[in-house]
Formats: sequence, structure tokens, C-alpha cells
Amino acid sequence: MKTTTRALITIAALLGSVLPRNAHAQPQRPPAIESPVVHPDHTVTFNFRAPNAKKVELSGQFLKTNAPLTLDTNGVWNLTVGPVEPNLYPYNFVVDGVGVADPGNPDLFPNERFKASLVDVPGEPPLLHAAQDVPHGEVTYASYRSKTLGRLRPLLVYTPPGYRAGTDRYPVLYLVSGTTDTEETWFKVGRVHFILDNLIAQKRAVPMIVVLPYGNMMMGTPMPSSPQAAEMYQVFNDELVGNLMPFVEAAYRTLPDREKRAIAGFSRGGGQSLFAGFSNLDKFAWIGSYSAYLTPEVFDRYFARAAADPQATNKKLRLLWLGVGKADFLYPQATEFDEYLKGKKIEHQSLVTEGGHTWMNARHYLAETLPLYFR
Amino acid sequence: MKTTTRALITIAALLGSVLPRNAHAQPQRPPAIESPVVHPDHTVTFNFRAPNAKKVELSGQFLKTNAPLTLDTNGVWNLTVGPVEPNLYPYNFVVDGVGVADPGNPDLFPNERFKASLVDVPGEPPLLHAAQDVPHGEVTYASYRSKTLGRLRPLLVYTPPGYRAGTDRYPVLYLVSGTTDTEETWFKVGRVHFILDNLIAQKRAVPMIVVLPYGNMMMGTPMPSSPQAAEMYQVFNDELVGNLMPFVEAAYRTLPDREKRAIAGFSRGGGQSLFAGFSNLDKFAWIGSYSAYLTPEVFDRYFARAAADPQATNKKLRLLWLGVGKADFLYPQATEFDEYLKGKKIEHQSLVTEGGHTWMNARHYLAETLPLYFR
Repeated sequence: MKTTTRALITIAALLGSVLPRNAHAQPQRPPAIESPVVHPDHTVTFNFRAPNAKKVELSGQFLKTNAPLTLDTNGVWNLTVGPVEPNLYPYNFVVDGVGVADPGNPDLFPNERFKASLVDVPGEPPLLHAAQDVPHGEVTYASYRSKTLGRLRPLLVYTPPGYRAGTDRYPVLYLVSGTTDTEETWFKVGRVHFILDNLIAQKRAVPMIVVLPYGNMMMGTPMPSSPQAAEMYQVFNDELVGNLMPFVEAAYRTLPDREKRAIAGFSRGGGQSLFAGFSNLDKFAWIGSYSAYLTPEVFDRYFARAAADPQATNKKLRLLWLGVGKADFLYPQATEFDEYLKGKKIEHQSLVTEGGHTWMNARHYLAETLPLYFR
Repeated sequence: MKTTTRALITIAALLGSVLPRNAHAQPQRPPAIESPVVHPDHTVTFNFRAPNAKKVELSGQFLKTNAPLTLDTNGVWNLTVGPVEPNLYPYNFVVDGVGVADPGNPDLFPNERFKASLVDVPGEPPLLHAAQDVPHGEVTYASYRSKTLGRLRPLLVYTPPGYRAGTDRYPVLYLVSGTTDTEETWFKVGRVHFILDNLIAQKRAVPMIVVLPYGNMMMGTPMPSSPQAAEMYQVFNDELVGNLMPFVEAAYRTLPDREKRAIAGFSRGGGQSLFAGFSNLDKFAWIGSYSAYLTPEVFDRYFARAAADPQATNKKLRLLWLGVGKADFLYPQATEFDEYLKGKKIEHQSLVTEGGHTWMNARHYLAETLPLYFR
């Protein structure tokens, strides 16, 4: 009996994500719906039980437009799409106009405004964000008391393989997520831990600590072009320098040196990173802006000194890196910022990619820059 | 301007959860819906945007039956319930028959089968699961390679306040969640970290490490009365002893002694804990069963030696603790197990409470037993 059981488990392990995550139903429950099902040819089947719905659509960042599902005789709506290019994508169902996560898929997109799920279409060889057979770091949920915000604030901290057993000190990347994201988004969607595990194993990145703050300053969601955005960046900066960094440097084995500190972020987090980086060139030598920008007005107002003496600024900045997608709704402003920096002779690297304001691009920019930081 | 901003933030901090989590909308988004709103009198308002839905109900473990929401002129469904007894409750909306999580509430119930949200009705003084102004431990996401299951397995590890900076070794509680739960459920729903932070600060519990395994052995969801359940418990036991424990004891500063190891769990995790505990009386001296049981048939078959020599068994067991609610659907079987143990003269403590097979009871039983372990 035991042997049979073991054999079944081994088969289950080999089949991986093609098997249902929860095989048999308990009597009082409807049968488990398996969704998504990623097939070997990279097509993906989505299933959703909603016998009373009039219309169910799939919204996914691998689709150009929402795609309708078809109701089968069991009250389950189905759709197979693709082949889909290997990547990790957010998606949700739209049920009579309401966006909902996939009930049986535990991989969620942490967000304050919507519920979406994640589907991983594996590559061959495995993509950089995939868990591979390499030494793994850890991700820790911690919290600190913020005087700036008058409350307990959450943070996540990635420590590299070997950290717990060792005594070494490490450089630190502060990595900030976007508007309505939470401190978990760079972990659960950005997969920073697996990306860095893999890059470290390949000796393409320096082992480092990565801090994922909660970037919401509880000041609404100002458009990045508005003066309110800069005010919010200023509060983030006060929070970072006055509260978060002292906590991190006391609690973790960091290298407390400007050459060993980087700050980067996606979307709002990119704006916060640019603002905090230029506000603290004595504390940060590496800045990454992923799908983000500062306006010339904000730069002129807050960073006139950095702009007035580009030679001194360039000497301090080991890297200023800007990435944006051509289809990003912020592409015009990001390009304007790039041009502005060129005009001011502030050295930087730029990467323009395909794609839009997506977490696929955020991961791509992270993977491009992690090998550059602290070199 | 800065002063005004700071003042607003201070007000926001004081108002706490009554304020929207995401204040202003970006142009392309509908206005943020604030839900749930917990009022000072412990009534709670739920809001859900679904202009095309025919029927929206609230399903919550603070309600006797599902309660209908009412559609307002903005396409938002509303309902105020309560006053609700202070506690942390799972809930979801049922939209034309489909259960969905609350879109704007980031506090989710980690589960493989459904999506539900969490609402925290605060007590005065604060309840034991609330974040209080005490030293906080950490929760770490890690992973290990399981030879038993042939795959990388996730686990969460709570380390107590002072762990990271110190050199002390600690006792370890293995704490297992239920069918369709994930390794995150005792963290996000069980709030084991805050409960233990508070108990440690009150000197009511010994500082300890808590390990949260992923209890799904990929063998379906057998009913606890079925022979298949015991086979699954056996695989869990092999996984625990052969893979998880060696990983934990190598990676964390544990006290590797049977008197310093406990195992407990809720629902399926309680069955797994009873089975693994009795299978390894040389490794565990403390066993907690929260809303769970073993059948007499399973006990007779697998633990005949323990039953045959109760004196030796009682000498080894520092604590065998059973808790169950009178309204639990497993109450008859849990009571039968209790009677069986009495008949066999195997010493144990029992707690029968109000309530059912809920995470409110799971937290309650955890809070009752944490002060007992390792004393």
C-alpha cells in the first residue's frame, strides 16, 4: 500500500503543475476546479465555476484584449489560449463586469485595489524567476515603528544564501513597488528572491540584501506628474532615511557605506527611488528607475545642486539606470526625463524595451540591473 | 505645505482602519471602494462594486446565514452588520452564486480552493492576535528539497524577538494547517506571530521557534475517518522526520531534544500532528490537536504499543492537548477519540468550547496551548 502511495506521489511530482493542486473533493464541496492548466505546448486552459453568470471573460497580460470563456454543461466556464510566451503573468476573470481572482489558484497578486492571480508558463531552460536547483535565500517579514507615519510599518527582507549561517556583511538594495502594490508585490509577483538566487548561483550578481518597503505613504495615489507626487516622495524619503534605514542597518548585517547601497523601484517606486536617491547622494551610489521618471520641474526644484554640478553628481553616482517600455503609458514622460538628464550632462544608462507598464517588464529591468549593482 | 501634509498623515494614522487604504483614484480607474469599514461601535460596513450583478450576499463567520447587500445608485452594493464581537473573521461576497474576495482588502485568507478576505474587529484592550507595542519576532519564507515528495517545498518560520541578534537556542513548535490551507494560513489567518509576540512580552509563553510546514501531501483531501487519511499522515510523517526536521535543525538555532519539540495543528494538521507525535515519542514530548482526532481503528493499528503501555506513554508525553468546538462537524469523532484515550488511560487535557470548525477557534486553541508548551 505504501509503495503504491509513493509511486503515485512520484508521478504527481513528475507531472508538476499539470496535476490538480487539490485532487479530491470533500462531500459537501463541489469538485475542485483545476485552473490554470499549463500544457506542454504552452497553451493554457482556464476554468471557472459560475453557473449563473451571463458572461465570463479572461483578462490577462498575455492577451491583446479580454477573451470570452464558454459555459459547459457542468456550470464551468472554459477557455484555452496560446501558445503563450513563457513568463509569469497576472490575470483575472471578469464575471458580468466584476474582476475576480481564480478561486483555486493560490498564487495571488498582492494589491490594495484588485484581486488578480498569476500564471507561470515555464521556459526551457527555466526562466530567471523560476525556482531552480540552486542555494536559496530567505524572505523575512518584519516590522518597525515609524515615527514619520506614526504607525507600525511592514517590510520584507531578502537575505542571500548563506546569510543565516554566516557572519559576512552585505550591500543592500532598497526595492520599492508601485501604486496600490504592497510590500509583498516584489516578492510574490517580482520574484526577486528566485531571480537573485539564480543570478548569485551563476555568479552574475553580488550576494546582497534586498529590502522591500511598503511604499504607500497614505497620501492617496497622486499622478507622477503632479506636485503632490513630489510631496509624497519627500515623505517617503523622510520615512526611508529616518526610520527604515536605521532599522535595517541595526537588524541586518549590512555594509553601511554609500557605495554599498542601491535604491530602485517600479512605477511609483521608481519615482520614490529617483527622489530619495538624488536627495541622499551621500547615502546611495546606485539608482534604478523601472518604468518611472521625475518631471524636469521637480528635478529643478529639489535637485538644483545636482543639476548645477554634473561632474560632482556623476562622480557620486556609480549607476543611474532608467528602463521603460515603448508601450508604457508613461513612456513620453520617461523619455522626456531621459532627455532632460542628457541636457544636464548627468550620466545614466537607458534601456527601452517592448511592452508596457507591466510586472513582466519590472522583472526584466530588475534582472538587467542586479548584475550591475555593487560592481 | 510639508506641515499640512504631516498633519494629514498624523490624522490618518490616528483614524487607522476607518480611512480608505487607497484614497484618490487615477483617472482611468473607478473610485476606490472602501471595504470593510469597521466602525467604533463594532458595526461593519461592506461595499462591493458590481453594477450588473443580480444578487450580492455577504458570507461571514460572524453571521448565522448569508446576508444580502443592497445596490446603491453608483453600482455599489452595501451592507452594515453588527455590532460584531471583536475577533478576526474570514468573509467573502457571493455574487450571483460565485464566492469572491473583497477587491480592495489586501488581507486575504491563503487557501487552495477559495478566495476569502479577513476583517479585524478590534477589541479593547487589544485582542491577543493584534499587533501591539511589544518586541516583534520575524516570519521567514524558506524552502527545502524534499526527497519524500520529490520537489522543493515551502515553509514559514517564526523566530522570536531577539533571535536575529542573539545566539540562544530555542524550542520548536511544528504548527500545521488544515485541508486546502497553505503554509501561509497559520501566519496570515492564525496570526501566530502576533499571538506569540504578545504572550512572550507578557511572560506567559516561552520564546520559541514556530515552523509552519505546507501540509498538503498531494494525495487529495481524504476524510479524516478514512484509511486514506492515515496513509497520508504516514507520508507527512516521513516528510517531517526525513526532510523538514533535518532542514530546520540545520538552519535554525533549535534545541534538539524531545522535551524541546512540540507538534500541533488545526483540522487535517491536527490529525497529522497526532499521527506524527505518536509515531515519534522519542522526538516530541508535546502534542496539540485543534479540531481534530484519530479514529480508534487508526490508533489501534499504528500505535498499539503506545496504547498497550499507557504508563510508558504518559511518562514520555509532557502534554497531549485536545480542543474542539461543540458546533464543529468533527465534534462527535473528536469526542469519541477523547473517550478512547480515557479508556486506554492515556493522559491528556481537553477543552470543549463554543463555536465550530473555524480559525477563530484554531487561534483560541493556539493561545490556550502556547503557554503550556516547554514548561
